[in-house]
Amino acid sequence: MKNLKIDDTICALATGGGKSAIAVIRISGPNSLKITNTIFSKDLSKYNTHSIVYGNILFKNEIIDEVLISKFNNNKSYTGEQTIEISCHGSIYIQKRILELLIDSGCRLANPGEFTLRAFKNGKLDLSQAESVAELIAAESEAEQKTAINHLKGGFSKELNILRQKLIDFASLIELELDFSEEDVEFADRKEFKKLLFDIKDKITQLVNSFKLGNVIKEGIPVSIIGEPNAGKSTLLNTLLNEEKAIVSEVPGTTRDAIEDKLTINGYNFKFIDTAGIRNTNDKIEKLGIKKTLEKASKSEIILFISEVNKKIVIPKSLKKDKRLLIVINKIDLQKPTSYANIKDPIFISAKKSKGIDELKKRLINCVDTKKLSNQNTIITNSRHYNELKLCLKEVREIINALEINLSSDLISVNIKQALFHLGSITGEITTDTLLGNIFSKFCIGK
Amino acid sequence: MKNLKIDDTICALATGGGKSAIAVIRISGPNSLKITNTIFSKDLSKYNTHSIVYGNILFKNEIIDEVLISKFNNNKSYTGEQTIEISCHGSIYIQKRILELLIDSGCRLANPGEFTLRAFKNGKLDLSQAESVAELIAAESEAEQKTAINHLKGGFSKELNILRQKLIDFASLIELELDFSEEDVEFADRKEFKKLLFDIKDKITQLVNSFKLGNVIKEGIPVSIIGEPNAGKSTLLNTLLNEEKAIVSEVPGTTRDAIEDKLTINGYNFKFIDTAGIRNTNDKIEKLGIKKTLEKASKSEIILFISEVNKKIVIPKSLKKDKRLLIVINKIDLQKPTSYANIKDPIFISAKKSKGIDELKKRLINCVDTKKLSNQNTIITNSRHYNELKLCLKEVREIINALEINLSSDLISVNIKQALFHLGSITGEITTDTLLGNIFSKFCIGK
Repeated sequence: MKNLKIDDTICALATGGGKSAIAVIRISGPNSLKITNTIFSKDLSKYNTHSIVYGNILFKNEIIDEVLISKFNNNKSYTGEQTIEISCHGSIYIQKRILELLIDSGCRLANPGEFTLRAFKNGKLDLSQAESVAELIAAESEAEQKTAINHLKGGFSKELNILRQKLIDFASLIELELDFSEEDVEFADRKEFKKLLFDIKDKITQLVNSFKLGNVIKEGIPVSIIGEPNAGKSTLLNTLLNEEKAIVSEVPGTTRDAIEDKLTINGYNFKFIDTAGIRNTNDKIEKLGIKKTLEKASKSEIILFISEVNKKIVIPKSLKKDKRLLIVINKIDLQKPTSYANIKDPIFISAKKSKGIDELKKRLINCVDTKKLSNQNTIITNSRHYNELKLCLKEVREIINALEINLSSDLISVNIKQALFHLGSITGEITTDTLLGNIFSKFCIGK
Repeated sequence: MKNLKIDDTICALATGGGKSAIAVIRISGPNSLKITNTIFSKDLSKYNTHSIVYGNILFKNEIIDEVLISKFNNNKSYTGEQTIEISCHGSIYIQKRILELLIDSGCRLANPGEFTLRAFKNGKLDLSQAESVAELIAAESEAEQKTAINHLKGGFSKELNILRQKLIDFASLIELELDFSEEDVEFADRKEFKKLLFDIKDKITQLVNSFKLGNVIKEGIPVSIIGEPNAGKSTLLNTLLNEEKAIVSEVPGTTRDAIEDKLTINGYNFKFIDTAGIRNTNDKIEKLGIKKTLEKASKSEIILFISEVNKKIVIPKSLKKDKRLLIVINKIDLQKPTSYANIKDPIFISAKKSKGIDELKKRLINCVDTKKLSNQNTIITNSRHYNELKLCLKEVREIINALEINLSSDLISVNIKQALFHLGSITGEITTDTLLGNIFSKFCIGK
């Protein structure tokens, strides 16, 4: 797919829609400079790459807006094509009008992700890096941003290339054996081979396993909040979320999408699951409901058990020895807590008065295996990568089995080609238009 | 107020909030370069003004984002101060994180309009120009954009300065007469004086009168839709609005704020007012309701009377000779229209099938005095300017009266000073912190 000739010039709004101080319109393609010149008061060809030019956007002799234009030459731009960025006043009318003028002068409105698609086609990014651009834009927490920027900077691609190179070296020796098959020669020590394959298997297994972690990073670490009705589960949730909202609201627009029950603490996303109240009861139907709540809770990484201050704590049997359980004593603004001697490390809070919340957050963070999250360099967050790696792993396992039972080199060779195919699909060495369409349709317009 | 020393460095998100392809963070003030350098991978001081630098935003050794930085030196920037613009990936987390890093390094989050306030204080714009920046950003139609860009480019300021200069010339002659008052000298022909004052009065009157037009540009030309129940008033409104929405939706975000009943045709805003149905009735209460509808309609610039095809048209008496009345015959997809010989220029449409809508739009535009709208260079849209001009006009009228009855020069002198004060308030020669606070608090953050 690389180095395909791309003939047309595309344009799109690259900043958030609606009224704002400024807006940026991006133009890329062979005619981007020529087209922009037809609506700009100055001749952009006189300026160097990476320079900013002040002037007017014109329609006939009428000024549409005072703008700053950034110019990027071929191979010096994000897309690898001649690129222009117009920074205009963020009026809805002006944004629309400039796009209209560009389209009337020969631009086409870009599809979602088309700028990044061109960057990929021009060899500026490999496919997994291109995908990480969308992930970076979607990042809402430090952990997500870290994973995405690592992928964008090529961390993941580099690991894949090392794996690929090892497999290719192995393949070429196998091919050599095939050429001399009648002579029954073995060019490489089978022991060495196995060691190499186990290395590859381990590395891919590690990447595959990181997907669960990657998902937690993306979706948030699940935390169930359980307790008797009226223990203050919802108040606690609101207190946690409101504090966060107060911080976020300094950046306009960030509160636009309701955070619902997601909360970021120390850079990690937590997903809080409020449950129906549980209590000691003999009612059969209620018992059934409580059983379900506890089943749900048991799927979380952390379980917060909320109890009212100085009320008898009845921990459900199934949770009694659960290491994920944190006991939270609420409403300490009403009574001084007494007699918690036999409870291990209870956390005392008042959700209503926002007391003890910092301690609670600290304890939540302690439950997360932050070492696991920060020490692992490469974490898979993309399900497409996950699937390809799993398919690759299957092939590698088959090669190992084949070596065990001394299968012939030509059979092994088929598996190696398949394994290489799956690795190549991730970085885009091997790709199809359908796959690309699928990937880039999920991007923002303007990226 | 001008050339005030401004010590601190401010930062803000300048693009629309939320997730987008890119976002721009703007930094302005004496330490903008120094502060940005502490979180950037390159030394920005090595680059010229108006250049773009590619690099990484860093926290300690960790990469937060890959960005492009635009650098503007003192006096070469919008604010007149050293200014930096960071173009980053439009992730909510990244936008927030970079702002946090800047604030931790010594920036202050900017107040709404503070960048433009600084441009005003540094003499890059006068006050009426600064106000037009907010109007330009709010522009949703061609007519609004035209008025605002004319003000921004100094059209209005120039006219005010000419008026001011004339008044100052006049004032200096009056002052001279004051100095020689004992000798009873008249330095200028009173006739000449009067001519000059009438010129000033005419010009200010013209500007004051343009405010009504300016308001129509901002708020939309009011169009009432009246007719019998079931004539298709709401269908027509939906048809008109949906067509527009389809055009607008190419620019993401523009449909975010519901357009309600505002519609732009050929660059002019129309504001449609749907009314309750009216019909021939003997019911007293219903008659009263119809009377109210007609009163409301009579306040519009255009009245659309909708009637079902081939149904007898009963135009209410009060509207029969109204020149603003347009007769619209709807539902021509159901029957062929007959017998409209005695109706002047009816417009035949099918709101349901979108037939005849272009003709209707043409007729609406014909009703607008577009000549009046496009020939007048300067149109007042700002109520503050309107009030100051009216106060100025009052003083000029008093001067004219004073000259008529030969009042003494010292009394005239007081009125002249007042007139100059009001003109100066518009361009910001004379201003107060309260006034500035009031004006700039209405701006976007980041502008």
